[in-house]
Amino acid sequence: MPRDTDQVVVVRLDSSGDRSASDSLVVEEPLEIRVDGESFLVTMRTPGDDLDLAAGFMLTEGWIHGAGDIGTLSYCPDERDPALRNTVDVRLTGSARPVRSDRRTWANSSCGLCGKATLESIRRDSEPLVSSVRMSRQVIIGLPDALSRQQKNFWETGGIHAAGLFDAEGRPLAVREDIGRHNAADKVIGALLRSGTLPNAAAMMVSGRLGFEIAQKALVARIPIVASVSAPSSLAVALARDFGMTTIGFLRGESMNIYSHPERILT
Amino acid sequence: MPRDTDQVVVVRLDSSGDRSASDSLVVEEPLEIRVDGESFLVTMRTPGDDLDLAAGFMLTEGWIHGAGDIGTLSYCPDERDPALRNTVDVRLTGSARPVRSDRRTWANSSCGLCGKATLESIRRDSEPLVSSVRMSRQVIIGLPDALSRQQKNFWETGGIHAAGLFDAEGRPLAVREDIGRHNAADKVIGALLRSGTLPNAAAMMVSGRLGFEIAQKALVARIPIVASVSAPSSLAVALARDFGMTTIGFLRGESMNIYSHPERILT
Repeated sequence: MPRDTDQVVVVRLDSSGDRSASDSLVVEEPLEIRVDGESFLVTMRTPGDDLDLAAGFMLTEGWIHGAGDIGTLSYCPDERDPALRNTVDVRLTGSARPVRSDRRTWANSSCGLCGKATLESIRRDSEPLVSSVRMSRQVIIGLPDALSRQQKNFWETGGIHAAGLFDAEGRPLAVREDIGRHNAADKVIGALLRSGTLPNAAAMMVSGRLGFEIAQKALVARIPIVASVSAPSSLAVALARDFGMTTIGFLRGESMNIYSHPERILT
Repeated sequence: MPRDTDQVVVVRLDSSGDRSASDSLVVEEPLEIRVDGESFLVTMRTPGDDLDLAAGFMLTEGWIHGAGDIGTLSYCPDERDPALRNTVDVRLTGSARPVRSDRRTWANSSCGLCGKATLESIRRDSEPLVSSVRMSRQVIIGLPDALSRQQKNFWETGGIHAAGLFDAEGRPLAVREDIGRHNAADKVIGALLRSGTLPNAAAMMVSGRLGFEIAQKALVARIPIVASVSAPSSLAVALARDFGMTTIGFLRGESMNIYSHPERILT
């Protein structure tokens, strides 16, 4: 098992004075993703579920269109330290190869010069999300607790993000954690892609902010409802309104704000 | 003034039922940074302080070494919509030009295959942070409040990050906000770089997590103390310990954890 937390000794100052104490930190290490042996991306991530991360990232980047495009997915041995598992190689089944430069820009930032250009560019590449999924308000209200019940690291370290995928009855399909919000989303999408259960995902619940890139990843993975305990961004809401995705923010206790396509939430 | 918040109509559900309500969203739009007319980066950001963002990003990427390397810094007109200010052009004074590919990888993710390689790579490029700066515990305790007093958007939208630079007596030198943690750090570093006051910065206070990239940006900007209300990552602490930077996490009320170089904090 890779380490996902590290113990360190810290100086703790509080009203009773200062003392030496032990603290858990979320581990952050780079992961390199290679496609057919060629380096395509290095991303900072929390070790663990790296094959899910690679598969999800390939899908949400548009590099692959389904699990069938992946032949094999495996760690490369590290020559300096065989215990390190920080490189994943993806072998594709088809002859098409992802275009590195464009997608790189697309993934980490955007693809245009302004919000309008971005949305236009996505419109060219994406289909509207047509889905008859409905979820009850009571099920939605339960998602934050369901997410934190599945998290193993948050209470220990206070510094990790989680993303969970749920079916229409609110049953968890998978939950994944990472120091990066986007990585947690890619990991959980990749987990269901690899197990063939992605079509069952009705809602994604994320622990962090619902920004443009989270909405874009959900759109590519065809997830009709995205919910967050925190705020969405303007561009995430614009994307969701245009493409038929339901977005929910400030999901706390009995309250929530529905920013787009409220028809999917049955009250 | 660019819009940094958008008003939208939402459906609000709470224990009293559902109703239509107005909500403020943090605006997220892409910014393109060009160097001498050539496109180098597109990043999602909250509009505003874009010249600070470009200057800070250039510095923390290692593309420039000081304000003297920047000749001019200006918005490019958008042909489709003159009101849009989403492209910044940087003209450099010297003949040296940044290398795009390497630095791109470095900035957004990392530069090696494992934590060790990353630190080795930084070690080659960086000098240890030697600084006689000392700050009192009481001044440090006041930084979170000082940061939020200078924020204009957080209470309105709940979805924005802030980074502030303070002198050794805790006086704010600049505070900047952005939907992205890294952008807020680059904006505030760029603001002081442009005004020539970066050497006065004793501490950076960030509203979000203290990850590797935040620590790396502070190291390049030679800021001796970095504090966060949230958790640091393992790699941020390792970098700070090796390079002589003081890192403080969970700075809340009277309490804090000091993860590295506690000698700078006078109790």
